[in-house]
Amino acid sequence: MTRDLLQGALAAKAATRGGSLRIGLSGSPGVGKSTLIEALGLHIVGQGHKVAVLAVDPSSALTGGSILGDKTRMLELSRHDNAYVRPSPSRGTLGGVARNTNEAIILCEAAGYDIVLIETVGVGQSETIVADMVDLFVLLVPPAGGDELQVSASFSRLPALSLSVSFFFFFTQGIKRGIMELADLILVTKADGDLVSAARNAQLEYTSALKFMHPRSDWWKPKVMSVSSVKIDGIAKAWEEMQAFHRVAVDKGAINDRRGEQNKTWMWRQVQHDLMSRLESNVEVHKKIRIMSSQVYSGQITPGQAADDLVQTFLGNL
Amino acid sequence: MTRDLLQGALAAKAATRGGSLRIGLSGSPGVGKSTLIEALGLHIVGQGHKVAVLAVDPSSALTGGSILGDKTRMLELSRHDNAYVRPSPSRGTLGGVARNTNEAIILCEAAGYDIVLIETVGVGQSETIVADMVDLFVLLVPPAGGDELQVSASFSRLPALSLSVSFFFFFTQGIKRGIMELADLILVTKADGDLVSAARNAQLEYTSALKFMHPRSDWWKPKVMSVSSVKIDGIAKAWEEMQAFHRVAVDKGAINDRRGEQNKTWMWRQVQHDLMSRLESNVEVHKKIRIMSSQVYSGQITPGQAADDLVQTFLGNL
Repeated sequence: MTRDLLQGALAAKAATRGGSLRIGLSGSPGVGKSTLIEALGLHIVGQGHKVAVLAVDPSSALTGGSILGDKTRMLELSRHDNAYVRPSPSRGTLGGVARNTNEAIILCEAAGYDIVLIETVGVGQSETIVADMVDLFVLLVPPAGGDELQVSASFSRLPALSLSVSFFFFFTQGIKRGIMELADLILVTKADGDLVSAARNAQLEYTSALKFMHPRSDWWKPKVMSVSSVKIDGIAKAWEEMQAFHRVAVDKGAINDRRGEQNKTWMWRQVQHDLMSRLESNVEVHKKIRIMSSQVYSGQITPGQAADDLVQTFLGNL
Repeated sequence: MTRDLLQGALAAKAATRGGSLRIGLSGSPGVGKSTLIEALGLHIVGQGHKVAVLAVDPSSALTGGSILGDKTRMLELSRHDNAYVRPSPSRGTLGGVARNTNEAIILCEAAGYDIVLIETVGVGQSETIVADMVDLFVLLVPPAGGDELQVSASFSRLPALSLSVSFFFFFTQGIKRGIMELADLILVTKADGDLVSAARNAQLEYTSALKFMHPRSDWWKPKVMSVSSVKIDGIAKAWEEMQAFHRVAVDKGAINDRRGEQNKTWMWRQVQHDLMSRLESNVEVHKKIRIMSSQVYSGQITPGQAADDLVQTFLGNL
């Protein structure tokens, strides 16, 4: 991305003082992210907004593959005049993808997209990365689907645990600890057909579990809601909740604050990422890395000695 | 630490091929770390070993203060001929303290201390740092002490949660998620007097909770045991368990493997830490940081642009 293009976008954005909203949406593969984003995006453009959809895909960053599989995604939304769906960047390190996405957000906002949706898969560090670039972080979770009973049954055989535990259920669904605490809103997906009551149970359980979590901010209490992308059910309500969040966040001055702090965090992460890539791609360092690694592994030199040598080699051979 | 001293230690250590065991012990303030380490250390020297006690204290790293308060700690142990208790390093960044500790381990081993105990407080990243420098990571937890009942009672008022949850209890005790998964052994402290039955309950609950955790390795199943440092009860058993761990780890070749991988991790962390400190202490960079931070905070420039500028300024002004 050229510096001029970006600088123009920053100036344009400053001039309009746009009240954009950046929404991150994360969930495990199969939770129904794409269909939800399509339904939500269409609802939002229907309300007169312009919607951009970006993606941070850890699999594409690391392997060149794509978990999010953009080509067949969000067909109707991507054809809409007021929507822009960007395929996920196909190459690069996660650090590079992050910078790319950070700057794409600014460009989209400068181009008049006031709602930016950023999709990611709950894999590796991608949720944390996305949570650190958005105003509002939404966690998508699947309806219960029976795992809970199975866990409870195995529990009842343990003595001191007659009181236990639907909490473990959350972990069996592959939702990492800590991720729930990042969420400003939790949406239980697929609340339709056979899964209606499972979704209702999941909603109750996540609601209860949230009571024991530290919320991300002191001015917003995250809710759990159920949605069906197929029946277009709960989508309008979820959007109302997101708008309520936006109003409160603007009132509290929290949007500017959160974005400012996020920007500083990203600046330092980027510095770190750039320095490490520069070091690793340095020819003289490159020659040493393999032998240093093996000497450090076998304990012939300490990690600190090896680090001194690598850093000196790098800084002395720019 | 001079390079020569360290190189001599590495050579001495290589010559003896010492079968040392590095044990990390972590727990919240007040859990009874010092008294346990004193009791355990005295038991171990009683078995003919030489014991060194080191500390990683995040409070001393960050503020110059000390949570671990070494001066009055482990009086009897520190007077023993075959024990060495090092006060925690009083200054420096956590990265610096880590390097210092890493190298102190090697020096202690070269000096014939075959058991190295590394104490830390469960604050910030210190547990992860210590877990990454030891063979065996021991988590100390307090006996239940009534919190559990309180939590359960508040739970019974929630509808869908008749099955819930003593698990939350663990979190109310300030034990972070993820830390339990680092543990190779969990010791419930203060299992004496009025707290005997609370300790027994805690032991059962942690044992149950462990069933739902991913163990740190596939060749060792962490146990939960109770100890009393005052009554010197359970200490011998805990030490037997640690020795059993050591035997299995040596058999599996896991000690060398774990240490080798840890060393590589530390090398890269140290490179990153050193590069960042060099950048931050660079005069030209220093002049720019404040203005860059504020421009990035207010969105006048992107984090990526600021990072480019800082990295260029650094590498161009060495």
